[in-house]
Amino acid sequence: MNIALDMMGGDFAPEELVKGVRDYLSEKNPAQVSLIGDEPQLKKLLTQYQVPVNAYRIIASTEVIGMQEHPLRALKEKPNSSIAIGFGLLASGKTDAFISAGNTGAMLIGSLYTIKPIEGIQRPTIGTIVPMENGSTGLLLDVGANADCKAEHLNQFATLGSLYAQHILGIEIPRVGLVNIGEEEGKGNVLAQATYPLLKANPDIHFIGNVEGRDIFLDHADVLVCEGFTGNVILKLAESLHGIMERQNVHTEYFDRFNFEDYGGTPVLGVNKPVIIGHGISRAKAYKNMLLLAQKMISTQLLAKMASAFKA
Amino acid sequence: MNIALDMMGGDFAPEELVKGVRDYLSEKNPAQVSLIGDEPQLKKLLTQYQVPVNAYRIIASTEVIGMQEHPLRALKEKPNSSIAIGFGLLASGKTDAFISAGNTGAMLIGSLYTIKPIEGIQRPTIGTIVPMENGSTGLLLDVGANADCKAEHLNQFATLGSLYAQHILGIEIPRVGLVNIGEEEGKGNVLAQATYPLLKANPDIHFIGNVEGRDIFLDHADVLVCEGFTGNVILKLAESLHGIMERQNVHTEYFDRFNFEDYGGTPVLGVNKPVIIGHGISRAKAYKNMLLLAQKMISTQLLAKMASAFKA
Repeated sequence: MNIALDMMGGDFAPEELVKGVRDYLSEKNPAQVSLIGDEPQLKKLLTQYQVPVNAYRIIASTEVIGMQEHPLRALKEKPNSSIAIGFGLLASGKTDAFISAGNTGAMLIGSLYTIKPIEGIQRPTIGTIVPMENGSTGLLLDVGANADCKAEHLNQFATLGSLYAQHILGIEIPRVGLVNIGEEEGKGNVLAQATYPLLKANPDIHFIGNVEGRDIFLDHADVLVCEGFTGNVILKLAESLHGIMERQNVHTEYFDRFNFEDYGGTPVLGVNKPVIIGHGISRAKAYKNMLLLAQKMISTQLLAKMASAFKA
Repeated sequence: MNIALDMMGGDFAPEELVKGVRDYLSEKNPAQVSLIGDEPQLKKLLTQYQVPVNAYRIIASTEVIGMQEHPLRALKEKPNSSIAIGFGLLASGKTDAFISAGNTGAMLIGSLYTIKPIEGIQRPTIGTIVPMENGSTGLLLDVGANADCKAEHLNQFATLGSLYAQHILGIEIPRVGLVNIGEEEGKGNVLAQATYPLLKANPDIHFIGNVEGRDIFLDHADVLVCEGFTGNVILKLAESLHGIMERQNVHTEYFDRFNFEDYGGTPVLGVNKPVIIGHGISRAKAYKNMLLLAQKMISTQLLAKMASAFKA
């Protein structure tokens, strides 16, 4: 098993990535890692942090796609960038998963055009972990890849999210809820009204109905489905709570879980191979967690399970 | 100046309303109040709470519209309900404002069909107060009256919200932000993309650009504009934080402001007369605040200012 990591992406690259790799490699049975980046710089840091030489290989890249660059253009014009190389490795089977905290748009474009959607999936999606008040963990999706959606897209997100919750979050029968502005069927905007009956009829999920804003953190559902506009607003609002808590000097076990720095990034769900997009602010712990998540996505054969769910 | 109050609406009617009325009447220069409800019950409570007899008049109602009733049907079939009577008083000029914490749908329907939109306004809207981390107070709208919107609706919400922030919240030049999922112009879903240029060109507002989920509580804008689906999810999520804080035993001055029980309800903006919809869980303090808000809406002539902004 091999996982490729873009060592040049994210605000604290490459040092925090090197530390994350070191920490990951000290876990039980790590995969082999391919570290894509500036070779001299990486060699120096890997030596400095005493990362065992036989556990990784360096794939030299000579370009970097900046956070503000136009994704499609940058991918075309920078074939030697760490992101372009990573997608090349993944597409050709030289690695089994690719992780980057670099330009999110380029990661999405690469996933869609180089790795491609699983057959039958109209819109791959990205989700986020939701820390529930009772200690459990849910999944909210889409959180921004698809700002405008049709009901069928949301229905597919539900299936993808449900499989993710089952195999990665370890929830046997995930409860799927539709994010909505009323409790009963028939409530909501046109999209939510059209989505409800599809979710109700979807044989691959356990649909429990609508979930209102007030119930998102209260563990009413394990998988929360919405279009990427509302999902992104919820995600970023939730992220902001951690900073507010810090500044208010509030520390509780629950609100510490709103430190999204700790999470292992967000996988692109619905494409043919494991791709994980990290948050720009990721530090060592987040990179270690992203590597662990990639390993779990590979070992559980999550993507084969998704493909078989969408087989005609 | 006269304000009519539906004494039968809300989870704690009529006792908490009587207490709220008593507290309001002990403020400086209160308006006269018309209390609509079950006369014997009200008389008993008003005596019990020693509300001065010359400060109010009772308007007897014999029916109540339940929280779960179909709004349009209930308004038609129950002309002697407190809500129907309230709208009748307001429409005929026998009161200057109407407040109810009863059936929200009936309150919206009554506003639209009995009081009617201000000429030129396509969609009246409801907003909510947003407690900012720095102590200031913003306004988010729409929060659920309009689940599906066009760009022009959002543009009108911006003008209405801006006038409200100016005259009721006392913000001289309110900064108007578009709730969105990216910082730059051109980001967002189709609606947000279409709304941005309208807000930019709107001469009646001070538009400052997009506001992301992470910045909603950080006082980037005084008036936050979005369609009612996203707005309702944000509102209810924010409301839920207060309960979570209580259960986590977290008490800070800031998060105490998330106790939406304290606020004075949400006015219906864009109709011809002051209508305020209270939260079902309102208690005495909220009713007192709703009465104060109604008084301020009347004394600042907010609605005349709104009408003149939309005059062709």
